[in-house]
Order: sequence, then C-alpha cells, then structure tokens
Amino acid sequence: MDIGKLMQEMGVRARRAARVLSGTPTGVKDRALEIVAAKLRDSAPILREENAKDIEAGRKEGLSPAMLDRLTLTDGRIEDMARSVEEIISLPDPVGEVTRIWNRPAGFRVGRMRVPIGVIGIIYESRPNVTIDAAALCLKSGNACILRGGSEAIHSNRALAAVFQEGVKGAGLPEDVAQVVPVTDRAAVRALLTMDEQVDLIIPRGGKPLIRMILENSTIPVIKHLDGVCHTYVDAGSDLEMAGQICLNAKLNRPGTCNAMETLLVHTGVAEGFLPGLLERMKEEGVQIRGCPATRKLAPWVQEATDEDWGTEYLDLILSVKVVADMDEAMDHIAEYGSAHTDVIITENHRHAERFVREVDSAAVMVNASSRLHDGFVFGLGAEIGISTDKLHARGPMGLEELTCQKFIVLGEGHLRE
Amino acid sequence: MDIGKLMQEMGVRARRAARVLSGTPTGVKDRALEIVAAKLRDSAPILREENAKDIEAGRKEGLSPAMLDRLTLTDGRIEDMARSVEEIISLPDPVGEVTRIWNRPAGFRVGRMRVPIGVIGIIYESRPNVTIDAAALCLKSGNACILRGGSEAIHSNRALAAVFQEGVKGAGLPEDVAQVVPVTDRAAVRALLTMDEQVDLIIPRGGKPLIRMILENSTIPVIKHLDGVCHTYVDAGSDLEMAGQICLNAKLNRPGTCNAMETLLVHTGVAEGFLPGLLERMKEEGVQIRGCPATRKLAPWVQEATDEDWGTEYLDLILSVKVVADMDEAMDHIAEYGSAHTDVIITENHRHAERFVREVDSAAVMVNASSRLHDGFVFGLGAEIGISTDKLHARGPMGLEELTCQKFIVLGEGHLRE
Repeated sequence: MDIGKLMQEMGVRARRAARVLSGTPTGVKDRALEIVAAKLRDSAPILREENAKDIEAGRKEGLSPAMLDRLTLTDGRIEDMARSVEEIISLPDPVGEVTRIWNRPAGFRVGRMRVPIGVIGIIYESRPNVTIDAAALCLKSGNACILRGGSEAIHSNRALAAVFQEGVKGAGLPEDVAQVVPVTDRAAVRALLTMDEQVDLIIPRGGKPLIRMILENSTIPVIKHLDGVCHTYVDAGSDLEMAGQICLNAKLNRPGTCNAMETLLVHTGVAEGFLPGLLERMKEEGVQIRGCPATRKLAPWVQEATDEDWGTEYLDLILSVKVVADMDEAMDHIAEYGSAHTDVIITENHRHAERFVREVDSAAVMVNASSRLHDGFVFGLGAEIGISTDKLHARGPMGLEELTCQKFIVLGEGHLRE
Repeated sequence: MDIGKLMQEMGVRARRAARVLSGTPTGVKDRALEIVAAKLRDSAPILREENAKDIEAGRKEGLSPAMLDRLTLTDGRIEDMARSVEEIISLPDPVGEVTRIWNRPAGFRVGRMRVPIGVIGIIYESRPNVTIDAAALCLKSGNACILRGGSEAIHSNRALAAVFQEGVKGAGLPEDVAQVVPVTDRAAVRALLTMDEQVDLIIPRGGKPLIRMILENSTIPVIKHLDGVCHTYVDAGSDLEMAGQICLNAKLNRPGTCNAMETLLVHTGVAEGFLPGLLERMKEEGVQIRGCPATRKLAPWVQEATDEDWGTEYLDLILSVKVVADMDEAMDHIAEYGSAHTDVIITENHRHAERFVREVDSAAVMVNASSRLHDGFVFGLGAEIGISTDKLHARGPMGLEELTCQKFIVLGEGHLRE
C-alpha cells in the first residue's frame, strides 16, 4: 500500500469536509453529537469486542499492567465517553462570534470573527477515549480531524471512529469530518506531518520522544504539552496553616498529573517554623523528599537533591525542596528550572503577589491556590483537548475557543485605499 | 568560527535580556525608543557610509537596480525610520493588560494577562529598515529579538543594530534585547531554527523558497506570510459604478503589494453590463487581462487564462478574470485557488454579504471595499511586523498585541482541588 497516497487522500477528504462543517449551524452539530452519544451506548458490545483484540495483542507484546488498564474499554468507560460528548453539546459554539467591531474614520467598520481552524491532526498514545473526545471537540468547533492513535489501540480506535462517523452521517454531515488513520505504519505519521496544504494544526498528546520527533519533522504548526515542573513558593509572612494545606493538596491530590507540585521553595525566614512539620506530614503520606543543604539542616532525614532534581517532572510521590533567601531567588529558580506550566506563590504581601503574577512567565501563575486548579473545567472553560505549554495561539487549557482562529471582516460602502 | 556556538550564546543572552525586558515599565521602553530615534538622525553619515559598502558589493555581485534601490539608505529613508520608531512610542503597550477576569463558584478568580512572547527570531531579506522596525516593535512589546537580515545588507544592518543598541543602553536596558547575527553564513540560520530552548517564535519575511526552507528546518513555531492571491467578486444586482471604482483601486493603487487584486470574479448576470467597460479602462491603465472563455466573448482582445493563472500572485499589472454562474461558484473558486489572504464581495444583497463573510476563510473578508484596505494602519492597529497568512496566533496584520501571548492568572485564598 502507498501510505503517502492514502494520507494525501485522507487530507483532501478532510479539507472538503472541513469546508462543509465550517458553515454548519450549531443545532446540526449538536444533533450529530447527540446521535454519537446514543450510538456509543448502543455499540458497547461491539466496542468491547474490538477492544479485546487490542488487549490480547497487548498482552502478547508484554504491555505493562498500567498500559493494559489504560487501553481497556469497560461499559463504565464507554458511558463516560458518551457523557463527555453530551457535555460538549452543552458548551457554547464559538464559531461565528464577532469578538470586536470598531469604526474607522473613513466610515467603514472592521471586526474580528471566530472561525474554525480547518483540519487538525491529532497524534496520541494508548487511551482510546481520546478518539471520541478529540473528534467531538473538533466537530463542535467546526474543525475536521485526522486522528492517529497508538498502534496498540488500533482496533478500538477504528471501531470508535466508525461509531462517531455513523452519528455524524445521521445528522446529514460528511463522515470525513473525523477520520482515524487505518494503518499502524510509522510512515503515516511522517506523511501527515508534512501535509501542510491539507492540515492546519498538529496536536500531539504523548511522551517527550514522540513530541521531539513531531517538532523535528512537522512543517505544520504544532501546539504541544511538554513538562509540568510546577513550583510552590512560600513567602515570608505568609499564612503557614494555609500554605501547608495548599502544598499537601498540590503534591498529593493526584501526583501523576502535570499540574502537581514538583518543587517547593520556602523563604528562609519561615523555613524553620514551616518545613519540619510539613515534610514530616509529607513523609507520612509516602512522599520521598529531596532537599537543599538548608532543608537537610532542618530535617536531617531528607535525601540530598541533585541539580537534576530541580528540572525533573517526577509525576510521582517525590518532592524537591529548596530554602531561598527571598522572592527574587525563588523567581530566578523558577525561570532557570521551571517548565512554564504552573507556578504558585503563597503570600499575604500585596506587592509580592503583584510582582510574582507579572514576572513569572508560566501558562498559569497563581496566588494562594493549589497548582492542581490549573484545568479547563476548574477555570470554567469546559472540556479541553489538552493543556498547552507553548506560548503561541493557546497557552494553558485548550478548549473550544482555542480550536478557532479569528479572521478580520471589513464592512464598507465603496471604501478605497488613498 | 563555531557558528553553532556563536548562535547559542546569542540565544542565551537574548533569553536573559528578555527576562529583564518583560518587567520593564512602558516609560523606560518608550525612553529607549526616543533615544534610538534621536541617534538614528545623528548617525545618518555613518549609516550611509556603511550602507555604501553594501551597495558597492551588491553592484559587483550584479544585483538588479530594483534590489539595489531597496538596499539603499538615504537621509530621507533614515528620517522615515526615526519617524516609525516615534510612531511605535505613541502606540499603547499591550504588556500587563488583563483582558478578562472572572469569578469561579468556589470563590477564586481566574484571569488572562498579556505578557511578551519572549525571544523572537526574525529572518528577512534586503530592506535594512526592517532591522529598526522589527527591533522597535519587539522592544515595545517586551520581546528580545535576534535579527538575521540578508547577506547583501550586512554592513547596514550591523550599523543599524549598533545605533539601536546604543539607544537601548542609554535608557539603562541591556543591549542584548536586539542583536543582529553578525555573520552571513547560512549555517547561522539553520542553527537559529533549532534553538527551541532560547527562541520562542520565528517570523520570516521574504520569498517562498526562504519560507519553505524555514518550515522544513524549524523546530520553533513560525508565523509566516505566503501568497496574496486576492479576489474581488462582483455579485448580481450590485452597484456597478461602485464595483468599478473598487476594482480599479484594488488593482491599480499599488499592484506590487500582497493585498492587490489578482483575480476578478463576475456574476454572469452583470458581466455584459460591467466587464467590457471596466476591462477597457484597465487596458488603458496598462493592465494585461487574462480571461475565461465567457470573458473573452465579451472582450475578444483578452488573452486566454490558463489554470495556472488562477493560482498566481502576479504582483504586477496583470489581472485574471472569470465569469461565474453564482456566488457559490465564486466561493468555490476562491476556496480552490485563493491563498486565504484578502477576498472581497461587491453586493447590495444582505444575505449574500452575510454568507460571504461567514463562509470565505481568509485573513480578511470584505464587503464593498477595496482589498488594499487590508493593513494594520488602515485597520487602526498601528504598526505591523507583517501580515500573517497563517491561522494560528495571528491572522492578518501582526501588530504589538500579536507580539504578546496571554497567560492565566489565578487569585485564591487558600483554594484547593477537590
């Protein structure tokens, strides 16, 4: 099979479907999603059957129990997928919104209107629910998508795409609005990444090697999520009771997520009164602590932190701790070792809060709150296709609005350029 | 010389300067730009001297008279540069603006704040004034820049950068906020394009081969300007007097610019009453016409348009003309052959205006206006670093606001994730 040709044809079909979708009223898109949700529930037996093939192949290939778990579709998980589709129905459609319109002295008006981006390529690993979530978010925002899941989930993803396409056709829309790459060859990804005539945006969801490969090979814009090396800085004169609660939540609420705290920075003036008790508590909760020399003076049982620790996203019950002389040292540390994901200051000092918010250059900068709050739902933006650690177009949770772009509109009455 | 090392060092210095600049008040940035404007005027003799070296080398290399003209710095052009710097002083500083802030049910607030992008790499050809314009726009928006001009302008660009850096130092800012790559080796561009740790955005200004090379080699996001194949569609029942004025302006006002009309589409119902007179007038103005068969029936002297014509950006006194059955055919033609830059409908029909504005997917979509109006100044946005034909982050004129990104800010009082 000629993979390049297969991908090109998918691209051309996606581009055509995107044009139809861009002019489709919200009601029709929502109707399509309603049918998708219903069909997902009806198709649970077939979906589990196809999924079983992936599980069997995965077992033979020796996938880890955690990987196999992520891969597994149960009736409960299928119901969850149907519900997320229904949640997306309830979100406002961003397409067509005129965000601003202003008059020019010559008498014409200039405005900005939200329109779909066009065709979006999504490259992801393991969890089959991404197939439905991503396709539904793209549909609602008027974008066609080309989905390339992991080879370990190929049967599940093909079956999910078939259900999605049936739903879409049920509402009279072209099935090509959501296509799953039907082959597992690596060449398909390489082909996709250079189809800049057909594809407007690549969103990767996966580990660092995947993202590096995509950056190096894509001629299409990429919006990515890299590390979450998130810091909490406890300032002098802060409410230490509150600081402790926030630190425990930021580390323990879900240690495996990108917005969990990885490094705690503590002002030297409060270190003695704050750190020994908190670290003891963290230890009780099973957290391994790696500290700077000053931390180890206060809690001699703490392991020594290496330079590598400061830049590491543990995604685990590990925390690095550093005592700093002041807020400037904390901000310098964050600028040097952070990943510009989520950084927090705990302080009662208004000027410090202001400076930290202005000067720390991260997707989310917080005052007196847990870094775990960095999330599209928690922020009130609805479902997200991912969290961007890039600075362009989308920074932080990427929801329906971030799946659109804004064009200029000009309304004249015969206006000319002088 | 180790070019890779040289570029890395420039990147590290730029990153450091960007951090200083991101927290610099507007007044200090404006003061720096005032000193730059004054120093530009004072340095005219030296600038012309350095420029003369480029002109001489260009003559020896056999550059075309048009190229040599673009390269030349005169006292008038130096004064123009100083004035554009002063115009940038007068524009509002976007940095720090909180564009929205909202309450969440749990009691914390979430907002979005504009911050600089960071370090911007600008790769351009011939015109030395880009060095000053780009550096001034980046400075005002809080970004450090690495400027890589054409090798034919290296002496001029180095001299201009020296003047800019003197001005910046005069206001107490680090000179590394604007650095010109001091060597002409191609390897410097390749190195720049993969410095994704140090550089946040690449903006190329130049021909298609340059932009293709950049897309294929960059691991950094690129915002580019490709073609302007701009259409004007004259609808049935439109004001033909106004339509004629708009068409003449769109073609003749400055035919060499990206927003000039390249293709005229005319509804079959008005073609007979509209085209022969307009085309005669265009011919008088020296425009060569290439038409579809229906056009040639109405004006037999017109040359036949080939399929290649429809996709060509002439940037010259050439116009392709097609008679279409209706607005749908016009929109299909624009979708197939256009470059999504600027497309115009001339109509009195409200529904057609609405549909055209919604459905045509271009950076600027206009009703009853000349495509030449697509410009940052004309839109009221102030100076622009270029017009983006991309869809992500910036679409259309890219001014100070588009040189920033928005981070999330969260203001809590001990809020945790449930």
